[in-house]
Amino acid sequence: MAQAPGWLEIPAGHPFGLAALPYGSFTTARHAAEHRVGVAVGDQILDLSTAASRFLPGRADLFSSGSLDQLLGAGDAAWAQVRAEIGKWLTDEAYRDGIEDLLVPAAEAELRLPFTVADYVDFYASEHHASNIGRMFRPESEPLTPNWRHLPIGYHGRSGTVVVSGTEVRRPCGQVKPAGHVSPVFGPSARLDFEAELGFVVGTPSHLGEPVRASKFAEHVFGVCLVNDWSARDIQGWEYVPLGPFLGKSFATTVSPWVLPLAALEHARVRPPSRDAELLGYLAESDDWGFDIQFEVRLNGHLISRPPYATMYWSPAQMLAHMTVNGASLRTGDLYASGTVSGPERGQRGSLIELAWSGREPISLPDGTTRSWLEDGDQVDIAATAAGPGGSRIGLGQACGTIMSAESHPA
Amino acid sequence: MAQAPGWLEIPAGHPFGLAALPYGSFTTARHAAEHRVGVAVGDQILDLSTAASRFLPGRADLFSSGSLDQLLGAGDAAWAQVRAEIGKWLTDEAYRDGIEDLLVPAAEAELRLPFTVADYVDFYASEHHASNIGRMFRPESEPLTPNWRHLPIGYHGRSGTVVVSGTEVRRPCGQVKPAGHVSPVFGPSARLDFEAELGFVVGTPSHLGEPVRASKFAEHVFGVCLVNDWSARDIQGWEYVPLGPFLGKSFATTVSPWVLPLAALEHARVRPPSRDAELLGYLAESDDWGFDIQFEVRLNGHLISRPPYATMYWSPAQMLAHMTVNGASLRTGDLYASGTVSGPERGQRGSLIELAWSGREPISLPDGTTRSWLEDGDQVDIAATAAGPGGSRIGLGQACGTIMSAESHPA
Repeated sequence: MAQAPGWLEIPAGHPFGLAALPYGSFTTARHAAEHRVGVAVGDQILDLSTAASRFLPGRADLFSSGSLDQLLGAGDAAWAQVRAEIGKWLTDEAYRDGIEDLLVPAAEAELRLPFTVADYVDFYASEHHASNIGRMFRPESEPLTPNWRHLPIGYHGRSGTVVVSGTEVRRPCGQVKPAGHVSPVFGPSARLDFEAELGFVVGTPSHLGEPVRASKFAEHVFGVCLVNDWSARDIQGWEYVPLGPFLGKSFATTVSPWVLPLAALEHARVRPPSRDAELLGYLAESDDWGFDIQFEVRLNGHLISRPPYATMYWSPAQMLAHMTVNGASLRTGDLYASGTVSGPERGQRGSLIELAWSGREPISLPDGTTRSWLEDGDQVDIAATAAGPGGSRIGLGQACGTIMSAESHPA
Repeated sequence: MAQAPGWLEIPAGHPFGLAALPYGSFTTARHAAEHRVGVAVGDQILDLSTAASRFLPGRADLFSSGSLDQLLGAGDAAWAQVRAEIGKWLTDEAYRDGIEDLLVPAAEAELRLPFTVADYVDFYASEHHASNIGRMFRPESEPLTPNWRHLPIGYHGRSGTVVVSGTEVRRPCGQVKPAGHVSPVFGPSARLDFEAELGFVVGTPSHLGEPVRASKFAEHVFGVCLVNDWSARDIQGWEYVPLGPFLGKSFATTVSPWVLPLAALEHARVRPPSRDAELLGYLAESDDWGFDIQFEVRLNGHLISRPPYATMYWSPAQMLAHMTVNGASLRTGDLYASGTVSGPERGQRGSLIELAWSGREPISLPDGTTRSWLEDGDQVDIAATAAGPGGSRIGLGQACGTIMSAESHPA
């Protein structure tokens, strides 16, 4: 056990050290109905709803609802103030007595959906992922559609089915059209997949009719979380022309319980890959950086992929600028995700359809079984760390889910 | 002036007679910050927030927020009870003294967005519209994609930019790729369009993982409203492959201020057109009916189209069953729209792209001008009536919007 600066002991190298301080919502067994805002620190959670009422009473209303909604809407000055205060409480001996009893062992807490999701948008920002999918879904065409290098392609998903890590995911039923069939058939998806993504959580809203420039990214985006955009490839393949994915995606989207504020990612900023096409002005503004965030995807505990976020073609600020360039407004709680994070190497692919190449190259697990698609009972854990100060790594937590068998349902 | 049954005078044939009683949210000049739930009756609005506290105190909490959210979530038994009570108040002389002073002239009220939109889904349920669009967007292919007759195609839209009738709509900017150009260009949309649609407002939520059968339609859907799914065809045409419409639609969606409960539509039920393909079980359940709802679209006051909702291929219950067959849950406030209502005749097309055939057959207006697309300052009014008792027509109100010029924005 190394001594962190100040009074609080945090194991050395812990992903939730003092440089991280992600926010979430939790309950405890003793107060199961009472949602509280918490900050993860080491293996403990600081009950921020109570801490703020003690030491930051002027901001206590930001945490009284037990979700992050009020903090998200409070704006970047409040975000900075609250983070600075928490850092002080956890290090300055003067606060020890008033804070130490508000630390709850993480193992005793139930983590909740951290904020109310307003609109959910999913992008398609990895060149490697989009190229792989294009090769598999449209083998007769160029892998990337002609628009891909000119704009970050995105679409709206279902915000009502965004669930927190740990929520079981029921295998969806739906229409699929097997090769060679004249008509579609109904049944449980046989091509269930995951997609490892980074999510951006909007705090400060914008006005309808007023585009948000890329340079305003840090004023509007509060932080990041992990996203698993579960996908039923067979349902998606039959439905998605011409209006895009719908039921192949809308059954569930898992997010990590911890939202890591942008302030924790200052050391993780990296230049995005060089662009092949000249960009239109609103996408070519200066604030163009990605993140050194390293994903790890585990299937039933076995590491199957390490997607590097730094390889993403479109930057977070470009996605924001594009999403609003038509005047669409932002609301507090909007969530936009990067799309599957896939690097150039096979071991860096962020979805099973890519790793097993649409079933043609099944992956092997240590128990001797293979997977082309997810089976009932399979557990997918998506974790990530970001570059922190002094070569350290900062944790983003995990987005986990286990597949339940399909509901029996009349075909 | 004909005497309606009971004490309240309503002009004969008024679209908001006692058989309609749609719900909305309004403010008055005297109480501009105080949103109230109202019921339209004739040219007046009954202040339901106050009326319920007088005569239905056990349900007064359903109206205290000033939006329909609580009523929507209260379930079908409450919906029936409240409607029956309102009918009694407006006819039984015993309530006259306590109700008459709660009638606000509609001309003095400002109508608000009637409910908080949770998820917004847009379908594509008109065979005539989908065929017309297919012919224009994909002239080299069959007009209808192979999946069209097997499932009601839909996609998620942006709920945060759903606005109430009367809200001005700013012309969006975005990327378009003019024919013959190598690269896209940025600028105001030159192909701005409307889409006349019917919207279904979900009241009772459902559980994640549990499909909602078509036969449960009336338990979950509270009522209907009018929708204008404004569309920038040039932006949409460049962006929509492969993930569907995004910025071409997300800048604004206008809804009527009045939500007409399903109970008012009992006389409007009609059989949908016969289906050409055998349907899978979850779409072939018994509760398969459409609505005799007649739309009227006016451009700058001039009637340009009369789309008949009765010609829609996919029924409202089929859309609901499809949207949830993968286990996607419903939330109170979900809004799903039919897609453009277009009949088989030219004068029944519900969008300008169809009426003017993508600019090849501009429509003429009485002022001597023509339109291929909407111009700045153009006002689009979508109105509709449904078949009511005894050959009467019941009003759904209007969804209106005027086009503002594009924001100047760096390209």
